[in-house]
Amino acid sequence: MAKEITSTSEDFNKWYTDVIKKAELVDYSCVRGCVILRPYGFAIWENITGVVDKLLKKIGVENVSMPLLIPESLLRQEKDHIEGFNVEAAWVTCGGGKELSERLCVRPTSEVLFCSHFSQIIESWRDLPKLYNQWCSVVRWEKTSRPFLRSVEFHWQEGHTIHSEHEEAREFTITILNLYADFFRETLCIPFILGKKTEKEKFAGAKETYTVECMMKDGKALQSATSHFFGSKFAEVFEINFRDKNNAEKLVSQTSWGLSTRVIAAIIMVHGDDDGLVLPPKIAPIQIVIIPIFPKREEILKKSNEVFENLKNLFRIKFDASDHTPGWKFAEYEVKGVPIRIEIGPKDVLNDECVLVRRDTREKKKCFIKDLKKNLDTMFEDINKNLYLKALKNMESRIFKANSWNEMVDLLGYGGFIKTLWCGAPVCEEKVKNELGLSSRCMPLKNKITEGVCPVCGKEAITEIFWGKSY
Amino acid sequence: MAKEITSTSEDFNKWYTDVIKKAELVDYSCVRGCVILRPYGFAIWENITGVVDKLLKKIGVENVSMPLLIPESLLRQEKDHIEGFNVEAAWVTCGGGKELSERLCVRPTSEVLFCSHFSQIIESWRDLPKLYNQWCSVVRWEKTSRPFLRSVEFHWQEGHTIHSEHEEAREFTITILNLYADFFRETLCIPFILGKKTEKEKFAGAKETYTVECMMKDGKALQSATSHFFGSKFAEVFEINFRDKNNAEKLVSQTSWGLSTRVIAAIIMVHGDDDGLVLPPKIAPIQIVIIPIFPKREEILKKSNEVFENLKNLFRIKFDASDHTPGWKFAEYEVKGVPIRIEIGPKDVLNDECVLVRRDTREKKKCFIKDLKKNLDTMFEDINKNLYLKALKNMESRIFKANSWNEMVDLLGYGGFIKTLWCGAPVCEEKVKNELGLSSRCMPLKNKITEGVCPVCGKEAITEIFWGKSY
Repeated sequence: MAKEITSTSEDFNKWYTDVIKKAELVDYSCVRGCVILRPYGFAIWENITGVVDKLLKKIGVENVSMPLLIPESLLRQEKDHIEGFNVEAAWVTCGGGKELSERLCVRPTSEVLFCSHFSQIIESWRDLPKLYNQWCSVVRWEKTSRPFLRSVEFHWQEGHTIHSEHEEAREFTITILNLYADFFRETLCIPFILGKKTEKEKFAGAKETYTVECMMKDGKALQSATSHFFGSKFAEVFEINFRDKNNAEKLVSQTSWGLSTRVIAAIIMVHGDDDGLVLPPKIAPIQIVIIPIFPKREEILKKSNEVFENLKNLFRIKFDASDHTPGWKFAEYEVKGVPIRIEIGPKDVLNDECVLVRRDTREKKKCFIKDLKKNLDTMFEDINKNLYLKALKNMESRIFKANSWNEMVDLLGYGGFIKTLWCGAPVCEEKVKNELGLSSRCMPLKNKITEGVCPVCGKEAITEIFWGKSY
Repeated sequence: MAKEITSTSEDFNKWYTDVIKKAELVDYSCVRGCVILRPYGFAIWENITGVVDKLLKKIGVENVSMPLLIPESLLRQEKDHIEGFNVEAAWVTCGGGKELSERLCVRPTSEVLFCSHFSQIIESWRDLPKLYNQWCSVVRWEKTSRPFLRSVEFHWQEGHTIHSEHEEAREFTITILNLYADFFRETLCIPFILGKKTEKEKFAGAKETYTVECMMKDGKALQSATSHFFGSKFAEVFEINFRDKNNAEKLVSQTSWGLSTRVIAAIIMVHGDDDGLVLPPKIAPIQIVIIPIFPKREEILKKSNEVFENLKNLFRIKFDASDHTPGWKFAEYEVKGVPIRIEIGPKDVLNDECVLVRRDTREKKKCFIKDLKKNLDTMFEDINKNLYLKALKNMESRIFKANSWNEMVDLLGYGGFIKTLWCGAPVCEEKVKNELGLSSRCMPLKNKITEGVCPVCGKEAITEIFWGKSY
């Protein structure tokens, strides 16, 4: 089965498509640009949402649900915002058998709905802050589509908060960025660069956009989560006022932030290999699969079942007693990226042992069944560490520093990020985009700039910046 | 605060609207017929989905996600189905700045999408059954709207399964009906009648529809969850074939079933009273609220906090140390239906005691703090029992048996269900509808019919049936 996957070196894009299809993550639907999330793919998303939802609730975020449809007049109120989404909008024009008097947009994002609600419920400083989130799907009429990377409909969470002070709102933007960062590192074992987007690349209507920028195995960038600071830009338009402690009318300060099924693309392209998925244990729908060797021998089946019963409340575990060959099963669960396989054969039964096989390194380890729990805990920890470090090594080895335009040109062929200084001028960013085909990824939060010049124009630099090709 | 709620006896509909607004369950949005689920309302839904999702997974149901939009041609393939939904459809006609060549319907339900997917992935009997579910929102262009009862957009779960045999599919329809029934009884403390819908009232395209029919405090019926058996009606149209064990081509047999945010309406109208919500403990966002009497006294605050810390990992609990008066807080959490309130005053601190107050019966109970956990457990059990029995008593006292047309007419004024025999003829059902204003609710699964005649036409009866006014 694994053999039917194109190798990463032969054609990375084809490999990606093969993997998601073979691992049964998605199926193409009869609706243009929309995919079906199959049970295995959706289970990954459920595990992701489970972790992120807990993290958000821990810092006081509350879930709500806003309507799916947005009246055109509401969407048009903030002009930068509608400009950013106008071409991607899908419009409902007919409902209940009649032409509607006003078109309704299928939400591409819900800033304006939250604003309209906030303006209704906020009266005084006592009502602030409001830290809201919703899990939903949104629709953007993309011309091309690739599962998890770009599709007309996709699932995400969108957070929307309002605060009494700009400083508090900006800090919250960074709090969320760090929450995402922890999630990528601790749960997904994915390294990243945290940074700020340039004016050109920031979110439509935002004052500042912060990003978790990840690098895929092929050296390309994936913007994997973003956090936006709005200040009072929307609050002014939507009149979200409150009375402060001195009874003076003030505008709220606002943020929004999101993480989508794109993170599944990141998981696939950061950890996957030529045999398929390699899933981080914390979000793997099946963390352990038990495969009996000679499944027809009763003592093997019995022992395997015993092991399963002992572990089933501790891990997400599957016992595959089906009549496929062990070889078929090995390949099947390798494609599906199951982190640990437990093999139980005739000798193992005699010795009260089993064999643990790691998906990430292929290492095998014999282990007494009585020590299983301890060994599995250690192995999961090792897998987490190894996945992260391996990905970090790949990312670091593909970040190239350039001091001049010529160095930038020379580094183009290597694939990866190019790190330079930058003067901050959009015209230089444009030139890099047009002549080198690289977009600005972000200006790192950990900015180590001392002195130097922009390699594009030679003027004094104000920031470090990462350039790359992106998904 | 509680005083601002209209009493149930004065105007039940107004009471309902007051409660959902005062308890901050929803807010009206600027989108016609769509409401905003606020944190407290959405938290109830999250608790409901949490329980139901576990129950479904326990019997092998897997979650998936289908597209939000349905091409018109796909929706039109099964003619009874589209007839049922045609007038309620909302159509996307414009996307990416262009008129679409084919209209897309915002899903009112997803049978046809599941069918289209099933036909792609099913090959042999080995692939069956498929037990799928999705949590999502759907859109139906209703003319009138009332939060949780009827709205243009609402949240639900829709399950879709296919099986190799009709008998297995029909049995699964009943398995799900019983799962819903257990959920209503055990989790929501709501009694019900389980039954089969008449031909007139069944789901568009289904062969049989089963229902969980609940009675609200005002005697009106709420169809609260449904389970449909399709046989091969859709399978034929969408060509969902498989090879059976003898390698013969066969059509699958199908079911679908759903439960929506309507259950929140049921919770409100079955348990609520003149002071607001009365929430069943298992789905209450706040199960216990701790209210310090004299919150400025340090020893009271300290003791309250101690109690909170000891209980916070065992229950969903809130410690309200805000500077509102105890009286304000009592009313606030009564409106919100919090099942148990813990009061801690000066004497309590001295005696290491506290006072427990039940929302459902208003009973107060002194309790040593060291015995709190045990007392709370018992009290929650008592609340569950009391809520169920009280609602059951209301329902049973409002089910009236009628043997003749005149008896039916006489019983009209009482509000509640009228139980009669029925010959099964649609014309008799129509007559009851048109002349008495009652719709058929269901033919009970526990059908105790012996011999008798239909009170409408006098012909021989074939079933018992419940009639009622419904939401």
